[in-house]
Amino acid sequence: MDQVKLGELAVKYSRLYGGKIEVHPKVPVRGLQDFSIWYTPGVAEVCKAIVKNRDEAFSLTNRWNTIAVLTNGTRVLGLGNIGPEAGLPVMEGKALIFKYLGGVDAIPLAVRAESPEQFIQVAKALEPSFGGLNLEDIQSPDCFYILERLMSDLEIPVWHDDQLGTAAATLAALINALKLTGRSPRECRVVLLGAGAANIATAVLLEKYCFDPGKMILIDRNGILHSEREDMDSLMLKNRWKYEIALKTNRDKVKGGLREALVGADVLIAASTPGPGVVKPEDVELMEKDAIVFALANPVPEIWPWEAKRAGAAIVATGRSDLPNQVNNSLIFPSVFRGALDCSARRISYEAMIRGAEELARCAEEKGLSPDYIIPTMEEWTVYPRVAAAVAQTLSRQGLARRKISYEEELERASEIISRSRRILSALVDSRIVEVPASEG
Amino acid sequence: MDQVKLGELAVKYSRLYGGKIEVHPKVPVRGLQDFSIWYTPGVAEVCKAIVKNRDEAFSLTNRWNTIAVLTNGTRVLGLGNIGPEAGLPVMEGKALIFKYLGGVDAIPLAVRAESPEQFIQVAKALEPSFGGLNLEDIQSPDCFYILERLMSDLEIPVWHDDQLGTAAATLAALINALKLTGRSPRECRVVLLGAGAANIATAVLLEKYCFDPGKMILIDRNGILHSEREDMDSLMLKNRWKYEIALKTNRDKVKGGLREALVGADVLIAASTPGPGVVKPEDVELMEKDAIVFALANPVPEIWPWEAKRAGAAIVATGRSDLPNQVNNSLIFPSVFRGALDCSARRISYEAMIRGAEELARCAEEKGLSPDYIIPTMEEWTVYPRVAAAVAQTLSRQGLARRKISYEEELERASEIISRSRRILSALVDSRIVEVPASEG
Repeated sequence: MDQVKLGELAVKYSRLYGGKIEVHPKVPVRGLQDFSIWYTPGVAEVCKAIVKNRDEAFSLTNRWNTIAVLTNGTRVLGLGNIGPEAGLPVMEGKALIFKYLGGVDAIPLAVRAESPEQFIQVAKALEPSFGGLNLEDIQSPDCFYILERLMSDLEIPVWHDDQLGTAAATLAALINALKLTGRSPRECRVVLLGAGAANIATAVLLEKYCFDPGKMILIDRNGILHSEREDMDSLMLKNRWKYEIALKTNRDKVKGGLREALVGADVLIAASTPGPGVVKPEDVELMEKDAIVFALANPVPEIWPWEAKRAGAAIVATGRSDLPNQVNNSLIFPSVFRGALDCSARRISYEAMIRGAEELARCAEEKGLSPDYIIPTMEEWTVYPRVAAAVAQTLSRQGLARRKISYEEELERASEIISRSRRILSALVDSRIVEVPASEG
Repeated sequence: MDQVKLGELAVKYSRLYGGKIEVHPKVPVRGLQDFSIWYTPGVAEVCKAIVKNRDEAFSLTNRWNTIAVLTNGTRVLGLGNIGPEAGLPVMEGKALIFKYLGGVDAIPLAVRAESPEQFIQVAKALEPSFGGLNLEDIQSPDCFYILERLMSDLEIPVWHDDQLGTAAATLAALINALKLTGRSPRECRVVLLGAGAANIATAVLLEKYCFDPGKMILIDRNGILHSEREDMDSLMLKNRWKYEIALKTNRDKVKGGLREALVGADVLIAASTPGPGVVKPEDVELMEKDAIVFALANPVPEIWPWEAKRAGAAIVATGRSDLPNQVNNSLIFPSVFRGALDCSARRISYEAMIRGAEELARCAEEKGLSPDYIIPTMEEWTVYPRVAAAVAQTLSRQGLARRKISYEEELERASEIISRSRRILSALVDSRIVEVPASEG
């Protein structure tokens, strides 16, 4: 279905259903006298138990499974700073995916904040209600500052999906692409086109994984980043994260643009502007033999896969579900939160992200890698509990969990919770609470 | 069931179910390709429609039916300032009731705020996500200031249930009590024992209704309020709302305590501290013949109904579900929000509250009033849509609605939405998504 048609249906159905999610009881109401248990006077004892031990809120309320999907509406999809009201439909969609794929109760919260600082204050104030925060669609470089502050100030996992989700999915696909082309991460020369939320986070994660930052080159609108670029002083003040990346990467101080960067490169990770033609076949020709090209812009990749392949790429990935090798955050965020919530984690660590990405890569490897299959698809249901298990196990081992859980325990628990989510929707459809529209044929 | 047992069950079941509510899809997912409609790329068109007209968020997202149940945890039930974490179970319970009785999607939000001002900032920042705000369990006098500010600054209905819900339910019961004892509001001498959130709001609402404030007497811990009391200067600074009530009420400047106030009074509304024995039979004996006594403290009323009746009261109401004439906020808040949401109201007005209370009173009257039946019980399902219809109609007429709706339209719509809520729970129980515990017998 083309994008215009999808957009029309989205508006039509959003109006028909009046949104995408709702709040349901998860306890029975056998009669109105049950409200004396769920509400006053009975509930007072539940409050008292939490007064005695605050962490009891993770057992006695839905906090253990509830996160906020938070935005300030400053960079919604490719639409820019359209404000919180207009960002809300995206948060609702994300919440739907969180429940369906991860069994996570996610609350869409579009916040009107005049500054990053005010947004941070609101997010901090909300901590007592949530087991985690998923940030979304916040403009760069504010998103780096906001994530850093919240990760350090809060005692629950904070995740900015445009940064961390993209970085982890990219790492998973890259692990397998390297395997297929016989490369080792340490030796790999990686070019990252675009230096926004996604690629800066990817560069950081690749370094944590074991890529050599000196062999990475990032490119932004002003060309290749290097430690002597004339805007370094201004970057230091305005975008500390990009500044630090500029210092660490590009050991050879290559200057210029995409073509200069690509000479001899093994990997291109483009997360820049929609193509086609942003990356040209003759650019790819400059890369090493059997090059790896991830062209992740949506809705149209920076270069079409067939063009990249004709120019010598051995493996191409995109962000699109209708092309092979979709580098898709949805394989990561539901599972990472599933795992983090099931151990009531205090934070998310890079190590947990890496173990999650490795597990995701392993899922594909076990089915048999090929140039057109380096990462699982969303349909592979066994992937989500496995990634959750890897994340929960890692956080437990690192001492970041309020309740430790082993890989096997979490595999079983996550499988049960996620399959329950799908059972819920079936039950709602079967009982015609949720009506299925006639085919749009 | 006694309170100790109810408390034990509340803790046991809260742990068993891990909270009381969860987030479910209200749209079908026919396959993962549907996420291209509910999420990117389709959702972008929904965002654009809201950019063009912000109020479209009330049609294209769940905002039309979603409210926040907000607390700062400073006065939770009778437990005092126990903090947001420990207040969360109450907000969850309220959210459950909101859905079950009113079909409203309510999000429990326990906020960590250092000051009323900070709480206000958080609530304001959240406006774009919600169709209304229900405040809860906030200490007095902060609650007056917070409500006043939010009501004036926001373009959605803001309600503090401890104030407005109690006041409206009290008014409904009082209307019928007056009818039964042949009194007119204008002539009635009303004593209000306790001058916290509930009774200050009740005094204000009674005046708006048409009671004579000069014939009301409020009593707080320091005795009868009057315009010459020695703490008036300090009240002016610390509790402007109580100060203003002190100026308006008690025209005869009666001084002293409860006994002095009750001489010749027609009505006693006690919302003070749990009894029994806070109000004594010999106090009630001082009142007019056929006195009306509302003893609303929970879990034990200020005076038991049989004691008040033996002392001459014609009609007694309490806050308890196991006694006749329960003055119960649950008859009000689900319906008021149902009505306000169905017309996408910009605010709640006193007139809408009064029309709602009158409709609630009329529901009881039509069934036949008696001294033991002056207000409907929670089991009377037809009450909720009727109150919703009265509220929606009034707000529409007053120009406070984004989309006008008539009494008949709202009666039908509210009936349908509320009965759907009960169908949802049945469907979830039937499909064993929600398991019913074995009887606790």
